Amino acid sequence: MTKQRIKPSRPVNPSPAGLVTSASAAGVPNVLTLAEIFNVSIGKPVIVGIAVRKQRYSHELISRSREFVVNLPTVDILAAVDQCGSVSGRDLDKLAAFGLTPLPADKVRAPLIAECPINIECLVIGIHEIGDHDLFLGEVVAVHADENVLDATGRIVPARLGTIIYQNGEYWSAGTAQGRHGFTRT
Amino acid sequence: MTKQRIKPSRPVNPSPAGLVTSASAAGVPNVLTLAEIFNVSIGKPVIVGIAVRKQRYSHELISRSREFVVNLPTVDILAAVDQCGSVSGRDLDKLAAFGLTPLPADKVRAPLIAECPINIECLVIGIHEIGDHDLFLGEVVAVHADENVLDATGRIVPARLGTIIYQNGEYWSAGTAQGRHGFTRT
Repeated sequence: MTKQRIKPSRPVNPSPAGLVTSASAAGVPNVLTLAEIFNVSIGKPVIVGIAVRKQRYSHELISRSREFVVNLPTVDILAAVDQCGSVSGRDLDKLAAFGLTPLPADKVRAPLIAECPINIECLVIGIHEIGDHDLFLGEVVAVHADENVLDATGRIVPARLGTIIYQNGEYWSAGTAQGRHGFTRT
Repeated sequence: MTKQRIKPSRPVNPSPAGLVTSASAAGVPNVLTLAEIFNVSIGKPVIVGIAVRKQRYSHELISRSREFVVNLPTVDILAAVDQCGSVSGRDLDKLAAFGLTPLPADKVRAPLIAECPINIECLVIGIHEIGDHDLFLGEVVAVHADENVLDATGRIVPARLGTIIYQNGEYWSAGTAQGRHGFTRT
C-alpha cells in the first residue's frame, strides 16, 4: 500500500463523544460536547483526562469549581450531542434547550445527565496547558451506570452501551464485537 | 432508568486500539498495544498523548529516545494487536513474531507499521506522572495515510479506516456513520 503524507489536525481515531457537565458558583449547570476524553490512570487512583480550549465557558466553570462529570451519550441523543458542541452555555441553558435531564451527583455539584448510561464524577487534581487545549486531570470519585447496561455482576456490557464513536469529523455507532482483550492467549 | 454505582477502572468508552512503536539506542524497534491514546492539542501544534505504565519496555525506550509512532491498526490484524499487548518486547521481536512490517519513518527512528493505514510520528515534549501511568506528550511531526483511506483531496474517509474500537475489555469494529459534526446546524 502506498503511503501519503497528510495534514495531522486530529490524527487519533476513534475517540469517544462525551458530554462534560460542570456548574457555576451559583450551582447553574452547563454541558459541553468533547471528543477529547481519555482514561489516563486505570488503577489506584482512576484518573480521567479531558482537553478543553481556554475560550470555552466550561473551561472557566471547571477551573473555578475544580469538578466535572463525564457523561457518555448514546446514538439515541445524537442531535443533542451535536447541538451541545455548537453553542456556548454563556448564551443558553443547553441542558433545557436540548432536552437533557440533570440529576444530582453524589460527590460534585455538576449534574449527571439522566439520558447518558454512564456518568463519571471527577475532582480536578491538575491542569496542564498543552498546545491549544488545557488538559484537566480528574480523579474519578464515583461512576454511575444505568442498570440495563450492566450484567448480573455489575459489569458494563459493551453490546448494551450504544456509545457514540467520533472519527475524523463524523459520529459513528459501534459495530460488532471482534473479541475480548487477551483472546489470542486462550 | 435506575442508576447504579459501579467500580470505575477504565470508565471512558470507546477508546482507540493503537500500536505504538519505539526504538532502542541501537535502532531495534519495539511495539506496544495501547487503548490510552488521545488527541490533546489539535491546532498549532498538534499534540498526541499516550499513557504508558512505568514497567513497560516501551516506557524505557520512549523515555530514552524521546520519540514514538502511533499506528492505527484495522480489524484485519486484530490478532496481532491483541498479541502485541500480551508479551514484552524485552523477550521477543514482536513485529517479526506477529507479522507486522516495519517501514522507515521520516523524522524519527521508530518505525511505521505498514499494515496500519494511519501512522503518526511524534517527538516527546513532556512526560507527566499521573497515577499508575506516565503521560507522554508527543508533538506530531508527520502523519502518513494509506492512499486507499483518503479521498481525492487527501482527507481521511472514516468509512475506509476500519479502525479498532476498544470498549470495556472488548475489541469492536466501527458500525455506521450517524452524521457529520455540525449536522444539526445545517
